[in-house]
Amino acid sequence: MTRFNSAVTELFGIKHPVVLAPMGGVSGGRLAAAVSRAGGLGLVGASYGDPDWMKAELGLMADVEQPWGVGLVMFTVAKRFELLDLALSYGPNVVALSFGDVKPFLKPIREQGAKVVVQVHEVEQALAALDAGADALIVQGAEAGGHSLRRASLPLIPAVRDAVGSAAPLIAAGGIADGRGMAAALALGADGVMLGTRLVAAEEALPSPAFKQRLLQAVAGDTVRTRAFDLVRGIEWPQEYSGRALANDFSDVWASREGDLLTAPAEVAAAYVEAVRNDDLNVRAIWSGEVVDLVRDVQPAGRIVEELVSGAQAELTRAQRFFS
Amino acid sequence: MTRFNSAVTELFGIKHPVVLAPMGGVSGGRLAAAVSRAGGLGLVGASYGDPDWMKAELGLMADVEQPWGVGLVMFTVAKRFELLDLALSYGPNVVALSFGDVKPFLKPIREQGAKVVVQVHEVEQALAALDAGADALIVQGAEAGGHSLRRASLPLIPAVRDAVGSAAPLIAAGGIADGRGMAAALALGADGVMLGTRLVAAEEALPSPAFKQRLLQAVAGDTVRTRAFDLVRGIEWPQEYSGRALANDFSDVWASREGDLLTAPAEVAAAYVEAVRNDDLNVRAIWSGEVVDLVRDVQPAGRIVEELVSGAQAELTRAQRFFS
Repeated sequence: MTRFNSAVTELFGIKHPVVLAPMGGVSGGRLAAAVSRAGGLGLVGASYGDPDWMKAELGLMADVEQPWGVGLVMFTVAKRFELLDLALSYGPNVVALSFGDVKPFLKPIREQGAKVVVQVHEVEQALAALDAGADALIVQGAEAGGHSLRRASLPLIPAVRDAVGSAAPLIAAGGIADGRGMAAALALGADGVMLGTRLVAAEEALPSPAFKQRLLQAVAGDTVRTRAFDLVRGIEWPQEYSGRALANDFSDVWASREGDLLTAPAEVAAAYVEAVRNDDLNVRAIWSGEVVDLVRDVQPAGRIVEELVSGAQAELTRAQRFFS
Repeated sequence: MTRFNSAVTELFGIKHPVVLAPMGGVSGGRLAAAVSRAGGLGLVGASYGDPDWMKAELGLMADVEQPWGVGLVMFTVAKRFELLDLALSYGPNVVALSFGDVKPFLKPIREQGAKVVVQVHEVEQALAALDAGADALIVQGAEAGGHSLRRASLPLIPAVRDAVGSAAPLIAAGGIADGRGMAAALALGADGVMLGTRLVAAEEALPSPAFKQRLLQAVAGDTVRTRAFDLVRGIEWPQEYSGRALANDFSDVWASREGDLLTAPAEVAAAYVEAVRNDDLNVRAIWSGEVVDLVRDVQPAGRIVEELVSGAQAELTRAQRFFS
């Protein structure tokens, strides 16, 4: 069986340099546990921080013997520091931080003995996170599902590598769903990969079967970048971030007039909350990366991880055929 | 010395699966000849088709013994078929066609014994070009300089490969400037790569030293996607295509109100023409891909090609270190 050695496997003490994206509403304890047990690094998606949800899902990690972690959105935790304390109380080995200034969080995380991984979207952010003391960087391209800036992975990964040198392990995120993408990310200078969209279609992922079915049927051209799903929820994303999701009735109406959501009647937001509760896929956000083209079946997460790493090894070995 | 074998080297009878992007105003005969002599495939950028320019630059290819080709924009040639005849009269081995319906052009090109390569930007275009009879496909991601749709290379290349199977060689374009990018493209399923931005910074490229210097100093965040440079020139790009260029005074003014260029006074267009004539880099378009981060020196094209292929081989070989 394939076994990788990279700066990512060494840093986290894991078998495969494959990290579950801490996707809100998707990456619960069952999925994170399955990825960690398969030799990757499962990150529970605590996201904007619902304490009850966190307690339930983080509680599922109690009997996971392999390293695991939790993902938090910094602009949320900056206002509610107790969410970080709550997450740390479950003893994660890794805390992944996204979107914001990492400095205030480093000390408490380190004091718990956990590693700090910071998500970045451009070279300057990478240098800032490194300067603040991040143990590793998640380098996310704009083809990713969910929130990003505008830089694509293929030219971004080597640019970040050149900027940071060997000072930090890099985890490539965005555009990776199979062994080819993983092989490419490693060739570009990454030490590991993060899987998002591919693992939404894992058996252990939280979304409903109908939600996963939407992903299987979708192609990259069905995705849109929009702030509409954030604005209707009143989540204060910095202006420059928008999210990639499958277009649906809601985005069809609002993506072209996002600003109107700021002054929309309260019923619009209430209807959205109701749609999430009812899993109304024509309204609720189905975050998805462009790599959805390559997501064709629902599988156990462990199998997805194994196929990814064996596929990457096969691609890199097969590439020797080009040379005579 | 590195020598590649791939479906692209076989199809064209070349040594390295490296193709010069046929960039208008950049890829003249000297640059195309240098790339072909280095073992790649040089494509003269006939672009929108100035007959005098074409005669001068294509004339330089007369004593090139290696395979070479010419690139044409289909929506231009569709109205001025004589441009294709002119190009073919110089005996290119390959004609690369971009942006439009390939069907009307296949027969005359084939009758001259040349191969037809079609640039595509999404899976549907790839299938259509293949159905029309293209010999190979250029798969261009949105991180490229110049004109594109919205799909990023990393997830696009494997999606196109899966859709077309082994029916056509694929040339990855967009986001590639060094051996890491080439290695990644090959791992993703491409049979070769196209270089644009990197070869603008070739000694033999047509732009001025000051123009090339701008590229060396720029980073990806300096690029913008805009139709402004097309609209001011009155070039009828389909609405869905915009071009990636370095932001400058002109784009700072017009990118946010492109539509106004349709009704702008004639002086605006005249001033733009004058700026191109004077190489005024604050006004004229400097097309550039996001990969400009990795473009750090001006080199002879032959050296760029050699470093690219030896770098790709080194990366793919080095990747074996990941497996124990």
